[in-house]
Amino acid sequence: MESATLSQIGLAGLAVMGQNLALNIAEKGFPISVYNRTTSKVDETVDRAQREGGLPLFGQYSPKEFVLSIKKPRSIIILVKAGAPVDQTIAALATHMDPGDTIVDGGNEWYENTERRVSEASAKGLLYLGMGVSGGEDGARNGPSLMPGGSHTAYLNIHHILDKVAAQVDDGPCVTYIGEGGSGNFVKMVHNGIEYGDMQLISEAYDVLKNVGGLSNDELAEIFTEWNRGELESFLIEITSDIFRVEDVETGNGHLVDKILDKTGMKGTGKWTVQQAAELSIAAPTIAASLDSRYMSGLKEEREEASEIFKKEGLNEDINNVGTVDKKRLIDDVRQALYASKICSYAQGMNLLRAKSVEKGWNLNLGELARIWKGGCIIRAVFLDRIKQAYQRNPGLANLLVDPDFAREMVQRQAAWRRVVGLAIQKGISVPGMSASLQYFDTYRRGRLPANLVQAQRDYFGAHTYERIDVPGAFHTEWSKLARKARV
Amino acid sequence: MESATLSQIGLAGLAVMGQNLALNIAEKGFPISVYNRTTSKVDETVDRAQREGGLPLFGQYSPKEFVLSIKKPRSIIILVKAGAPVDQTIAALATHMDPGDTIVDGGNEWYENTERRVSEASAKGLLYLGMGVSGGEDGARNGPSLMPGGSHTAYLNIHHILDKVAAQVDDGPCVTYIGEGGSGNFVKMVHNGIEYGDMQLISEAYDVLKNVGGLSNDELAEIFTEWNRGELESFLIEITSDIFRVEDVETGNGHLVDKILDKTGMKGTGKWTVQQAAELSIAAPTIAASLDSRYMSGLKEEREEASEIFKKEGLNEDINNVGTVDKKRLIDDVRQALYASKICSYAQGMNLLRAKSVEKGWNLNLGELARIWKGGCIIRAVFLDRIKQAYQRNPGLANLLVDPDFAREMVQRQAAWRRVVGLAIQKGISVPGMSASLQYFDTYRRGRLPANLVQAQRDYFGAHTYERIDVPGAFHTEWSKLARKARV
Repeated sequence: MESATLSQIGLAGLAVMGQNLALNIAEKGFPISVYNRTTSKVDETVDRAQREGGLPLFGQYSPKEFVLSIKKPRSIIILVKAGAPVDQTIAALATHMDPGDTIVDGGNEWYENTERRVSEASAKGLLYLGMGVSGGEDGARNGPSLMPGGSHTAYLNIHHILDKVAAQVDDGPCVTYIGEGGSGNFVKMVHNGIEYGDMQLISEAYDVLKNVGGLSNDELAEIFTEWNRGELESFLIEITSDIFRVEDVETGNGHLVDKILDKTGMKGTGKWTVQQAAELSIAAPTIAASLDSRYMSGLKEEREEASEIFKKEGLNEDINNVGTVDKKRLIDDVRQALYASKICSYAQGMNLLRAKSVEKGWNLNLGELARIWKGGCIIRAVFLDRIKQAYQRNPGLANLLVDPDFAREMVQRQAAWRRVVGLAIQKGISVPGMSASLQYFDTYRRGRLPANLVQAQRDYFGAHTYERIDVPGAFHTEWSKLARKARV
Repeated sequence: MESATLSQIGLAGLAVMGQNLALNIAEKGFPISVYNRTTSKVDETVDRAQREGGLPLFGQYSPKEFVLSIKKPRSIIILVKAGAPVDQTIAALATHMDPGDTIVDGGNEWYENTERRVSEASAKGLLYLGMGVSGGEDGARNGPSLMPGGSHTAYLNIHHILDKVAAQVDDGPCVTYIGEGGSGNFVKMVHNGIEYGDMQLISEAYDVLKNVGGLSNDELAEIFTEWNRGELESFLIEITSDIFRVEDVETGNGHLVDKILDKTGMKGTGKWTVQQAAELSIAAPTIAASLDSRYMSGLKEEREEASEIFKKEGLNEDINNVGTVDKKRLIDDVRQALYASKICSYAQGMNLLRAKSVEKGWNLNLGELARIWKGGCIIRAVFLDRIKQAYQRNPGLANLLVDPDFAREMVQRQAAWRRVVGLAIQKGISVPGMSASLQYFDTYRRGRLPANLVQAQRDYFGAHTYERIDVPGAFHTEWSKLARKARV
């Protein structure tokens, strides 16, 4: 093949995400080679490129032809299932690649796998990027948020492409070099954890508005549309308003949302986020509550049985002791509760990122991460710009909650938030996410916690010692003996 | 050495726990050899054995002499720091041991390390047990709860000793063969997770009684003493009542508990419990809240600063909007809230144990585990007998909450529990553990959760499909298109 006809980049793995990202790249004017083990996917992608106006996308049917069709130093994005398939794909391609070429894994990979592959690639003279890609099918096609981490040289080789392919917002494309090693995957993982939190909080707002406020789907659609014009403006609020509009074509009767089984799936990144938070001593209760809620949603039959058992004992699912609710005020309160809860969840995610950055020496720029999430990705939202600004004002900000602007907003909203959680508790409507956020807020803002008692207990039974508030040092007390004396 | 004078068992690692357990064994009439790398600890232990009436305890000063002083097949308990020190101790001892001999690790070891060592030992013909030991220094000396897992033959070799050494309760000694592999360590780990939960919940009860009810330390001592006569009767409630009695000898002014810094330590088992729960799709929010509270207690300076910042914005730590509280009713409500919260926490721990048992084929007997926790260990409590009975009645019980007896108790207490959490929220007193338990309860007992919305969102942006409540199958909807149509 003549050098002039070589592609500028390659993409292997043509499931929907891969196809869409390849078409996006081609559409931005970068000739791209594509490859997939099952060759029908190659034909499918080539067909799509033709139908979409003859985009410069070239199908290849063997790893060797695929690799050789790309201009050196080559950059090849792979979009296959995380884990073993990534290793297999790398093995198939790497034999044909040359030193200085780059592999870019665009999947939701565990960051340590990426770190292993970075060094394996390096042993062969290859460069490696683990690149988080968010935005779903639609984002991949029209502009995702991209989180490439690993070799900086590899990033420089393709950043002119990524800059065009990524979503565009007022302050630039939604892509930046994240950092070394597996940082790109780690940041994407936390993005997904935050996404779990957002979705859970929205579902709780829905639950309270529906089951405490008695709102219909039509009213919910209106409310979420209205919310999407204010501080909550975001992709997830927008699609939620859409969801409440869709009727059930299957039965021709009522709204589709009511016919959907209340069992949620998941793919692992939320779990990893929770485990990493525990590992790094970071409290992330809102994200953990979202994960737990998905787990408990899966226990559908158990829950139905439990509901019957408690009903028999006299406790109905819906505890009718709330009286009349002022609908308008409830709606406004829930909006504030949702916003305040969301800020706590983002604070947790950001602190997890910082803790990992310190551990690994990644030097993550939290403000810049908030910036590249402003467009393309699932958690894109207007208020990310304000998070960006908070970290730009003060890169050492201990917690988003104490940024002056956010602190003021929290204080303005806390009364409404307490009313919503209190009402839900009275009524027996579970709001684990909102409640975890509120507990996080109330714990963080307290100079004095009852942890002194826990520490006394630990010293009592395990001689773990304690510190004092007035004198430095580690102390141990013979509690049992002194208590006996005091009782006399 | 003559066979007649050989010890029946050995113990290596003579920090406080090791010394105490060795003295306990000797006191029960089993001649024991002891060894420690730092030999002063050997002398110290021998001295103690002499002072305590000449117990049959024999100091050894080299690994070889130590091993050879024990009757075959030998059983050697090691009590050293988890991790590398265990491997080093095994290496030092194993060279002198013979096929059929047993190593028993009594530390808080990560269960997978034990599983690795079980097979390493087996390659040398040695048997291996990972044995959880709970009860602190005092338990080790006077009767701990013992959780041995690994080689069943090894267990049979020493169970006559363990039966005497363990705490004794009405239905036998607090020891049982847990299961294969690392099951003993895993069960001890979950025990510790539950312990975290109990301690956190008690500290929240204290916080509410003190800061909402205005109770003094003297009143708190009385209340906890009274609670220890009822359904809450347990070691942790008992020591808590003691703690409130102890005066501050350092300053001669006030109670010691008020002088203790509100920063808690931890040693890893709580973290592992939370990570394993996430791994096994088990919601354990109360235990997670306890871990998070320890983490947040560590952020003392950050919390003090946050408190100032929010105060400046008009939000005091203590929100004075609750009005007069009926003290007597509050105390009774808090007791009920504590008990109901505790049941949820145990339900989480038990379900985690079952999930792991299924994964690993350990065949854990949950009722028997509750039984051996009735004495000796930190979480020993009267109500563990009722947990034992619940699992004896129905070994397949899906959740402790739906055991008929516990279900009734939950329903009786839920109104008081909602009042306490609601009041704390109004007042700005964080109760993350009680609140996590309540959310767990309210989620578990609901046949229908708002997870349908989460699933609709996932299908909207990721084409993840959803199930329906009325028709089997997996469905995908073009939400955006249909919503657009509906809006017209």
